Amino acid sequence: MKELARPAATKMLLVVLDGLGGLPVPELNGRTELEAAATPNLDALAKRSSLGLAHPVLPGIAPGSSAGHLALFGYDPLRYVIGRGVLEALGIGFDLHPGDVAVRANFATVQDTRNGPVVTDRRAGRPPTEHTRSICRRLQDAIPEIDGVRVFIEPVKEHRFVIVLRGEGLDDRVADTDPQREGMPPLQPQPLAEEARRTAMLAGTLVQRIAELVRDEPRTNFALLRGFSRRPRLDPFPERYRARAGAVAVYPMYRGLASLVGMDLLPVAGDTLADEIASLKENWPEYDYFFLHVKGTDSRGEDGDWAGKIKIIEEFDAQLPAILDLNPDALVITGDHSTPATYAAHSWHPVPFLLYSRWVLPDRDAPGFGEHACARGVLGQFPLLYTMNLLLANAGRLGKFSA
Amino acid sequence: MKELARPAATKMLLVVLDGLGGLPVPELNGRTELEAAATPNLDALAKRSSLGLAHPVLPGIAPGSSAGHLALFGYDPLRYVIGRGVLEALGIGFDLHPGDVAVRANFATVQDTRNGPVVTDRRAGRPPTEHTRSICRRLQDAIPEIDGVRVFIEPVKEHRFVIVLRGEGLDDRVADTDPQREGMPPLQPQPLAEEARRTAMLAGTLVQRIAELVRDEPRTNFALLRGFSRRPRLDPFPERYRARAGAVAVYPMYRGLASLVGMDLLPVAGDTLADEIASLKENWPEYDYFFLHVKGTDSRGEDGDWAGKIKIIEEFDAQLPAILDLNPDALVITGDHSTPATYAAHSWHPVPFLLYSRWVLPDRDAPGFGEHACARGVLGQFPLLYTMNLLLANAGRLGKFSA
Repeated sequence: MKELARPAATKMLLVVLDGLGGLPVPELNGRTELEAAATPNLDALAKRSSLGLAHPVLPGIAPGSSAGHLALFGYDPLRYVIGRGVLEALGIGFDLHPGDVAVRANFATVQDTRNGPVVTDRRAGRPPTEHTRSICRRLQDAIPEIDGVRVFIEPVKEHRFVIVLRGEGLDDRVADTDPQREGMPPLQPQPLAEEARRTAMLAGTLVQRIAELVRDEPRTNFALLRGFSRRPRLDPFPERYRARAGAVAVYPMYRGLASLVGMDLLPVAGDTLADEIASLKENWPEYDYFFLHVKGTDSRGEDGDWAGKIKIIEEFDAQLPAILDLNPDALVITGDHSTPATYAAHSWHPVPFLLYSRWVLPDRDAPGFGEHACARGVLGQFPLLYTMNLLLANAGRLGKFSA
Repeated sequence: MKELARPAATKMLLVVLDGLGGLPVPELNGRTELEAAATPNLDALAKRSSLGLAHPVLPGIAPGSSAGHLALFGYDPLRYVIGRGVLEALGIGFDLHPGDVAVRANFATVQDTRNGPVVTDRRAGRPPTEHTRSICRRLQDAIPEIDGVRVFIEPVKEHRFVIVLRGEGLDDRVADTDPQREGMPPLQPQPLAEEARRTAMLAGTLVQRIAELVRDEPRTNFALLRGFSRRPRLDPFPERYRARAGAVAVYPMYRGLASLVGMDLLPVAGDTLADEIASLKENWPEYDYFFLHVKGTDSRGEDGDWAGKIKIIEEFDAQLPAILDLNPDALVITGDHSTPATYAAHSWHPVPFLLYSRWVLPDRDAPGFGEHACARGVLGQFPLLYTMNLLLANAGRLGKFSA
């Protein structure tokens, strides 16, 4: 791709309706959320677009948010895996440097027994976030560094927090300390490679110091660590595709993922879709590629709230004319994975995919934008990983391959 | 897959109608065997299922039975190739141990000429199976072992028999001795790798001893060897998918393939479909995954007997309600390859594929279960290798990929 990509005065737009794909809802007469939503603008666009179903990873595989977005940005999610620690750090907007080791941590309850300490509650009774925030502040003040390595301790939500280690020669190949079952002793952070010996020792010291500092807490008296990880080394998006790339997203995790691949984060005034579109408009002249992220579809899907998901889709449809007014040369509207409201979780179903440009073979007979129409679409079924190929090609930004 | 698979209290069922796929039959007004068969139960199920066409290996490639089944069980048939010797041994129900070298052998007719012996009939005039059986018995008695290596000599059908070598340090990289053309001298078993030198020498000695023992036979006076092979090393199915797996099959080759990947072979009282379903029912509580094999569709297809193939499909349809009564959480009905009656052989056409669970996007407008309906199905076209992904996902037995 890097060899074929060439600059051009064209605009590409990727709209991600997070968790877009759905399944038949009995109350909707067997239609899916997307099929049941009143979407006159999407339906009209569908007839002038190519439709298809795209697989974020592989058939049958339900992806996490990072895997779906990596695919959308053209990075193979089977090759680049983002660790839990990194994802959690991105989720709170932490500015991870290359080389930093990020760890997802949980406050837990540990009790002493004849056989030593055992974990009695892996989530310390889900403490209020405010409580976690105040302990993290106390820990951060007490442990600014260990052995020359900077330590960041940041609260997330309820029992969850993030630890980031920053210094020379760190390595993320360290095993989880969470025993995964209650009644078991917490594990030591074991190095999984010779080069990770020092990081594992630092982590061991850190766990001990935290334990001393919280030992008098009634429930949050221990910390379990998981998902030691570093930012993956990715070819920066703007160089790879020779396109200035701007991301319009409200949620920290998606901003983090965009910044991880090297996109610029565009300021958004508020957290509504209208705010996002205003940001898109304002920055339109400055970039070649835009990533616009809409979170609500996934959140409502995960809640099992099909009516709420429909409402978000309809809100998006109402704003679609404003997006089309920008006149993108190549436009994709899709999801990073499916989150059917009936399933109430990320699922493995391929996502509805709409590609619009002046160079598409249109699905002129499509009844609208929906899962069944996409299943019969002219794009067929394909890996979501090819999204960038399609955007670049349709925007006239890809040279011919081979002679 | 091994990392994502997790145990659950759900049941998966794979029904293989061997050689299911067909082509238009002129006498059936251009409908295929499956389309012409009266299958009210399959047709009703199709409207509640996802349909598709699955490629056993690659477009244009007609697979052997082992390749198709490996794909169905989730083992890439391009990576794991089952040698002809092993397949022949499985076909007679021979209990192959890891390390055994199996060889497919033919009785042939050889004549001495001025330039030494040449093969005049590679199949020795297709002797009756009974004749082959009696010679094999005589050879087995005379050659129980060579140089400390056990030798098994087992008849198959007509001129075909199987030789299995069992001992330490054997290697299957030995060239065929069949010159493939009449009028040519039989070849020596050449080692294809240094480590196979001893096995090749043993094979040479064996061929010589057999030749001495049958030299007075008028036609079956020589043995040609092909397909030296060992059992491939496969990750055992139950560990790979964390599922107890039971196989219901009547034909030895399919029982052999199932046992090769580590499934339990379930006893079947007779050789009818009803017997197979009775076995399925009886063992239903004990297993998580079931492989049910129906051979007739392929046999009739190979005979060019479209009416017979239709009859087998209709028999299966009549039994389908009994299968559905078991209430599998995820059900696939498909073939291991196509055997169109008009083609009368395994073909390269993708196989009709039906997936049923409570989590499918249904092909509600499908006219029934048939090749054309499957070509327009919501699963599109995909590698048969993903069958296990789909079964596991639909049975709630796969965790999310990546964070």
